[in-house]
Amino acid sequence: MSTTPADHTPRADGRADDELRPVKLTRNWLDHPAGSVLVEFGGTRVLCAASASEGVPRWRKGSGLGWVTAEYAMLPASTNTRSDRESVKGRIGGRTHEISRLIGRSLRAVIDYKALGENTIQLDCDVLQADGGTRTAAITGAYVALADACATLGKTGALTGSVAAVSVGIIDGVPRLDLPYVEDVRAETDMNVVMTGAGSFVEVQGTAEGAAFSRAELDALLGLAETGCAQLTRMQREALAGA
Amino acid sequence: MSTTPADHTPRADGRADDELRPVKLTRNWLDHPAGSVLVEFGGTRVLCAASASEGVPRWRKGSGLGWVTAEYAMLPASTNTRSDRESVKGRIGGRTHEISRLIGRSLRAVIDYKALGENTIQLDCDVLQADGGTRTAAITGAYVALADACATLGKTGALTGSVAAVSVGIIDGVPRLDLPYVEDVRAETDMNVVMTGAGSFVEVQGTAEGAAFSRAELDALLGLAETGCAQLTRMQREALAGA
Amino acid sequence: MSTTPADHTPRADGRADDELRPVKLTRNWLDHPAGSVLVEFGGTRVLCAASASEGVPRWRKGSGLGWVTAEYAMLPASTNTRSDRESVKGRIGGRTHEISRLIGRSLRAVIDYKALGENTIQLDCDVLQADGGTRTAAITGAYVALADACATLGKTGALTGSVAAVSVGIIDGVPRLDLPYVEDVRAETDMNVVMTGAGSFVEVQGTAEGAAFSRAELDALLGLAETGCAQLTRMQREALAGA
Amino acid sequence: MSTTPADHTPRADGRADDELRPVKLTRNWLDHPAGSVLVEFGGTRVLCAASASEGVPRWRKGSGLGWVTAEYAMLPASTNTRSDRESVKGRIGGRTHEISRLIGRSLRAVIDYKALGENTIQLDCDVLQADGGTRTAAITGAYVALADACATLGKTGALTGSVAAVSVGIIDGVPRLDLPYVEDVRAETDMNVVMTGAGSFVEVQGTAEGAAFSRAELDALLGLAETGCAQLTRMQREALAGA
Amino acid sequence: MSTTPADHTPRADGRADDELRPVKLTRNWLDHPAGSVLVEFGGTRVLCAASASEGVPRWRKGSGLGWVTAEYAMLPASTNTRSDRESVKGRIGGRTHEISRLIGRSLRAVIDYKALGENTIQLDCDVLQADGGTRTAAITGAYVALADACATLGKTGALTGSVAAVSVGIIDGVPRLDLPYVEDVRAETDMNVVMTGAGSFVEVQGTAEGAAFSRAELDALLGLAETGCAQLTRMQREALAGA
Amino acid sequence: MSTTPADHTPRADGRADDELRPVKLTRNWLDHPAGSVLVEFGGTRVLCAASASEGVPRWRKGSGLGWVTAEYAMLPASTNTRSDRESVKGRIGGRTHEISRLIGRSLRAVIDYKALGENTIQLDCDVLQADGGTRTAAITGAYVALADACATLGKTGALTGSVAAVSVGIIDGVPRLDLPYVEDVRAETDMNVVMTGAGSFVEVQGTAEGAAFSRAELDALLGLAETGCAQLTRMQREALAGA
Repeated sequence: MSTTPADHTPRADGRADDELRPVKLTRNWLDHPAGSVLVEFGGTRVLCAASASEGVPRWRKGSGLGWVTAEYAMLPASTNTRSDRESVKGRIGGRTHEISRLIGRSLRAVIDYKALGENTIQLDCDVLQADGGTRTAAITGAYVALADACATLGKTGALTGSVAAVSVGIIDGVPRLDLPYVEDVRAETDMNVVMTGAGSFVEVQGTAEGAAFSRAELDALLGLAETGCAQLTRMQREALAGA
Repeated sequence: MSTTPADHTPRADGRADDELRPVKLTRNWLDHPAGSVLVEFGGTRVLCAASASEGVPRWRKGSGLGWVTAEYAMLPASTNTRSDRESVKGRIGGRTHEISRLIGRSLRAVIDYKALGENTIQLDCDVLQADGGTRTAAITGAYVALADACATLGKTGALTGSVAAVSVGIIDGVPRLDLPYVEDVRAETDMNVVMTGAGSFVEVQGTAEGAAFSRAELDALLGLAETGCAQLTRMQREALAGA
Repeated sequence: MSTTPADHTPRADGRADDELRPVKLTRNWLDHPAGSVLVEFGGTRVLCAASASEGVPRWRKGSGLGWVTAEYAMLPASTNTRSDRESVKGRIGGRTHEISRLIGRSLRAVIDYKALGENTIQLDCDVLQADGGTRTAAITGAYVALADACATLGKTGALTGSVAAVSVGIIDGVPRLDLPYVEDVRAETDMNVVMTGAGSFVEVQGTAEGAAFSRAELDALLGLAETGCAQLTRMQREALAGA
Repeated sequence: MSTTPADHTPRADGRADDELRPVKLTRNWLDHPAGSVLVEFGGTRVLCAASASEGVPRWRKGSGLGWVTAEYAMLPASTNTRSDRESVKGRIGGRTHEISRLIGRSLRAVIDYKALGENTIQLDCDVLQADGGTRTAAITGAYVALADACATLGKTGALTGSVAAVSVGIIDGVPRLDLPYVEDVRAETDMNVVMTGAGSFVEVQGTAEGAAFSRAELDALLGLAETGCAQLTRMQREALAGA
Repeated sequence: MSTTPADHTPRADGRADDELRPVKLTRNWLDHPAGSVLVEFGGTRVLCAASASEGVPRWRKGSGLGWVTAEYAMLPASTNTRSDRESVKGRIGGRTHEISRLIGRSLRAVIDYKALGENTIQLDCDVLQADGGTRTAAITGAYVALADACATLGKTGALTGSVAAVSVGIIDGVPRLDLPYVEDVRAETDMNVVMTGAGSFVEVQGTAEGAAFSRAELDALLGLAETGCAQLTRMQREALAGA
Repeated sequence: MSTTPADHTPRADGRADDELRPVKLTRNWLDHPAGSVLVEFGGTRVLCAASASEGVPRWRKGSGLGWVTAEYAMLPASTNTRSDRESVKGRIGGRTHEISRLIGRSLRAVIDYKALGENTIQLDCDVLQADGGTRTAAITGAYVALADACATLGKTGALTGSVAAVSVGIIDGVPRLDLPYVEDVRAETDMNVVMTGAGSFVEVQGTAEGAAFSRAELDALLGLAETGCAQLTRMQREALAGA
């Protein structure tokens, strides 16, 4: 299905430019929450837990509508060099805030609040090991945990679709899919794309890390992301079809 | 130059779909910082100050390279209903973090750190009045303050280009440029685009607020943003050409 | 009306010792809050907003009484050298606390809580540019914003009088009115005085920065403050008499 | 020496209007700090400790000048109804900040930094029991602890004079000296005055709690404060003359 | 009653190995709280206040049960070298948390919540001077303050027994009772033991500071603690039998 | 080896009173840190990472001695009902502080700082799933990760022994080893014991949750703990003997 053109350096892990890393979705990794998934994108491992509780935040009470929210965090030893614990620093960094908000928005894009009723599902995405693409792995895994939590609640109707996410980027002038850490740090442009299972866009976040990018490069990256998300959607479906 | 098609509801302020709000860039609004601009996009008013100081943060010392960073904040009474002060809450919210980081990255995209030398320029973008598009107004104004600060430092060579930013969105199915608050809250999709004066992309951040968006809609929004940023680039040039 | 004695160094800005800097009160500077004033005492510029809301803090509910409170803050680039943002530091400094409390007490001195009813007026005094006397400019401007907010609420009866404030100090042994930054840092004694329009004292805060001061010096300073506050009261009245 | 006029309600504790409460200064109440005093103004008990250490804060290093600073705090059970602990709340309140700053400024008014050399004296004023006038008792006691610390350091020349402080106020129209809690809460005007042993003013902080006050009332209060501070100065001298 | 064996270095203060320091329990040291005790174990002085209030924390409302909780803190100048104030640092340290929790648990061990009814007693244990054993002195004193508070509330039936605490440790291989600071810092093993007046254990917290300890050493330490707590129990009883 | 007496209720999981839950130590669970272990005590799963870095904290620089420290935390979804994230609350709770300190002290008991040289090993113990005994599992697993980190550093001589830990408690009057959550919440007395591989005690922390405990009960619990720690020591040795 995918090939590496002869005219540029191959990827360190031997993948084609439009090829995902090995992806693994392990459901029910935890005993307590309503849904839980250990998601792996190559060396990136994120534990996604979906805790369900009756009731909604104060500002939503009596509306008949549910709520879905998310928190993302990295374990200190998940990164190449140990990172300080945010609880010890006493404040959450901008990057953490940003990703937590992104995950929450992405999941809410496929939720029918009315069908969920006045219930809250809280997603916790904790990065156990980081090797690039932690936020996209988190969204992809969190969707599966969310689906399990909806089922546990008897609210499968609360899901209007599925979401998956993948990173794409330009390395040495070549657009590539699903960047591991070694590629991510060298990328001139880095984009995270969240899509529904039906092929529409939920979030597009592209950043020029080095040089600004042209409209043509942007188009190439969007194309790669469409390919990647379609495959992830298939894997999510298979995982949910399992026991 | 621009027209409103007959087949859909006109905008509340009478603008064409691809028309910017009145934009005003007032330089040297403050006496103390090396550069300062009061930028207005319609009712949105952001005070952008560029403070220059010798030296760089600890992690960059001795590198011979400069640094540019930014902080964004809203005055409590800038919004429709008063917002609590983040200093009083004792913590900065996720949205504030996110926008501060966006502004910093956008400006750094046109900085030659070597030419800047071991100097730091700190941008402060304080929203005095908010009527939609505060982050894009902030970037557009901050670039002008930054250019003035570079000139004050005698480091005009530190700028490799210019940046401007604009918001675009889909309201009732129609792609529109530069959304005021009343349109922003109703937008199905909302995108902030940062571009260089040369027409390349620095940041693309699109979010489906309501329904997910198609590739075709995404393309239409990018086109509108290119139009808007080109006009803002021209206004920045004119402002800097003034006294 | 006022003269500079021949026997001492004139003021850097040419004013007589008992002369105010040019004062400007611009009402309705903002669209959203119930009252807003940009007040200028020479180079000092403070944006005062009075936001009105129904209801009172929990500890006052059901009392039939209203509440007025104030917060003061400085923009980072308002000062000679940039100051760190208190929201970023995660805590409000002692000086900020002190001035916020002073402004609140000063305004509450002319409020009839019963006539205000269970409404809250929150004053935000944000220093856009600092050149000495920011707290006294804030009080003087905030009173005008408060008056506008009371009018917006249809509660003009809630005001039992007016308040204005001015700084006085002893520089090189000479008592002077309304100190700009260059005088303030050199003052041996520095006093902030808040008075009602009727000529009574609301707050007197005098501090020996260098040498302690005598009773005679204290008396001279109080006299100067009476003069200054009377003039500010007149300007407030004129501003409120405008459109 | 002092008399209560026949035409107004006597004080609850039987004192004349210009009479201090019983004052007690117990030196060396603690074993560790260079100076320590338990000061009592009637039921108000404040433990003042002066800890001396070599060196000065970073911003003062190499100047050859010393530093004196102060922190004030109340024990939770010191007040009529228990107050929450500021360490538990995670932030220091405005009142605490304000008083800490006042104590520091008052003591620094009688310090010759050069004679002190690059040493720091840190005053801690902890209110063990509060019955009005805690800040003035703290200043009065802290001066004695400071004098002892200077002696311990062999730097008695670092003191250029003494400071003492007292509260005065108007209750039911009558100016009174040294207000206990029951008078303080009822005072229309409340003033704290800090004076040197030589009879000059260091700080004057007057606040209209109820009605604004006239110049005549202000004058009467200043007179009472002069009387009170002179007596406190005498007691400080006697305490320091003891063992 | 107790003797120092000839074959090892005597204690610096001349005590026998199984001898307590002079203990003093001064009741009613404060006017405001329902119970208060200044407890002294040699140079260690802790002010224990028991504030009673109607009602219980939210999570306990309507249960008919009372609540007892405790906070421990050290004044900055209580230690050999001044410690920073936790309110200023903005966070409570681990040691403070740990001891507050220990005191609370210890006192709750002798409370009958039902007999207390929906009332809360808050213990504040503030170390005025530290010379080793502050947490055990705090528990011993706090019990007496608690007993007084129960009596004030008319709820003496809420106490099911008494608690006292003492430290023990191994210094130079010799088990010793009630360690002052100079012994504490040199102890190989350090244990705090809380016991009821009836001779049962409430808390046993032993820590090997240097070498790990054998079961025989542990047994010897427990024996010493039993002796010490029995004596403290007697002193508590005597103190409470006083006026 | 172990039997359940006929005269009391058997344990819910069928274990004998002196029997450990199934214990599993999986080394090298993470790619980045110098040592890492996933430790399981029944349903309790703790990820222990030992990150090594050159250098020591500032207060230890130039001493030639190394440092070992630890942080403990629970993932939000690790508990029966989701717990709030401490980074979000902005402060670390007392229990977390207490356990972090316990783990650090326990590991330092078997470290020869001199042999370690000026290196720091930071242990992170993150509870992925909690079912009682998380702190004792953490210590037991952290020791193995620490041993691996010492080997990675080429400093195996820095370990003077091993440490393991286990919980014991009295449930319905019966002393039991290694309590799962269902037993822990019902325990009258709860004790955590840390021992060296050589059979000495490092920490003994016993708490009467319900009734105070007798010396005989204490002795029985210590005996059970000795049995449990000996078995854990054997398992640690086996794990480290593996690849």
